Amino acid sequence: MTIPAPILSRPLAIEKDWIDYNGHLNMAYYNVLFDRGTDEAFAMMGVDASYTKERRLSVYTAEVHVCYVRELHLHDTVKVSFQLIDHDDKRLRTYQEIRHVDGWLAATSETLSLHVDMEGPKVAPFPADVMAKLEAVRAAHATLPMPERAGRSIGIKRKSA
Amino acid sequence: MTIPAPILSRPLAIEKDWIDYNGHLNMAYYNVLFDRGTDEAFAMMGVDASYTKERRLSVYTAEVHVCYVRELHLHDTVKVSFQLIDHDDKRLRTYQEIRHVDGWLAATSETLSLHVDMEGPKVAPFPADVMAKLEAVRAAHATLPMPERAGRSIGIKRKSA
Repeated sequence: MTIPAPILSRPLAIEKDWIDYNGHLNMAYYNVLFDRGTDEAFAMMGVDASYTKERRLSVYTAEVHVCYVRELHLHDTVKVSFQLIDHDDKRLRTYQEIRHVDGWLAATSETLSLHVDMEGPKVAPFPADVMAKLEAVRAAHATLPMPERAGRSIGIKRKSA
Repeated sequence: MTIPAPILSRPLAIEKDWIDYNGHLNMAYYNVLFDRGTDEAFAMMGVDASYTKERRLSVYTAEVHVCYVRELHLHDTVKVSFQLIDHDDKRLRTYQEIRHVDGWLAATSETLSLHVDMEGPKVAPFPADVMAKLEAVRAAHATLPMPERAGRSIGIKRKSA
């Protein structure tokens, strides 16, 4: 299997209920788009609803940092990219972009995720079969540059006097 | 008017459509809860749907950092807090917590927001009436400690060898 770098989602539509009184995609629903992109990428690594149902293992989100770059509106169609930038035996650090199908950037997201044994729930190592797939994705994504917005922290930066 | 420190939302319910295949509140919908808490706090400062409709001014989200602390399930009821930790003439830095009505912490969020003139849209200074309300909230919130998770950045921190 050739692994895309980054992994790209199918085209996703903006739903009517997601538009707020500003007439644009509400900030919270960018995360629904990112999550749908994540679901597709994880499924490629064998982590999906049947993995959770049959093995009682899953991936939970621990931390997310989103940057909003450009407004999206009702009739826009987007794709979500997925880049694995780091992992160890229990954790994943990933970076995503929402881009309009015309190519322009709408938002970025950086995520820290934990592999979880749902009996507990408690953090647990990836099983060998998933770890092998993760390592293949990591190798395929090793050629991608570190994203400009990775490791970012929030603050109001003032010009020095 | 006495300004609560922090400002607390009304009790909010978890909606059925927000539960994912892990059987808990999907990560994206924590942001819907944070956004509803923000809407209530902004309305207290005169920034709501009628402000946007009549004056063509609004507040857009630029950046958000969420930490997921504990799972939420369908029948949980939560409240969302809102703390103004910094502002200037065009920007707000805020911190929120989602807590179960029993008191335990489910998630935190730090946000950078921009005041926007919707003709453009372009970043624009707050008008004097809103600025006065912001300053009153900032003064009321000055006694609150800086949140432990403010200014955080994502990464896999490894134990040194």
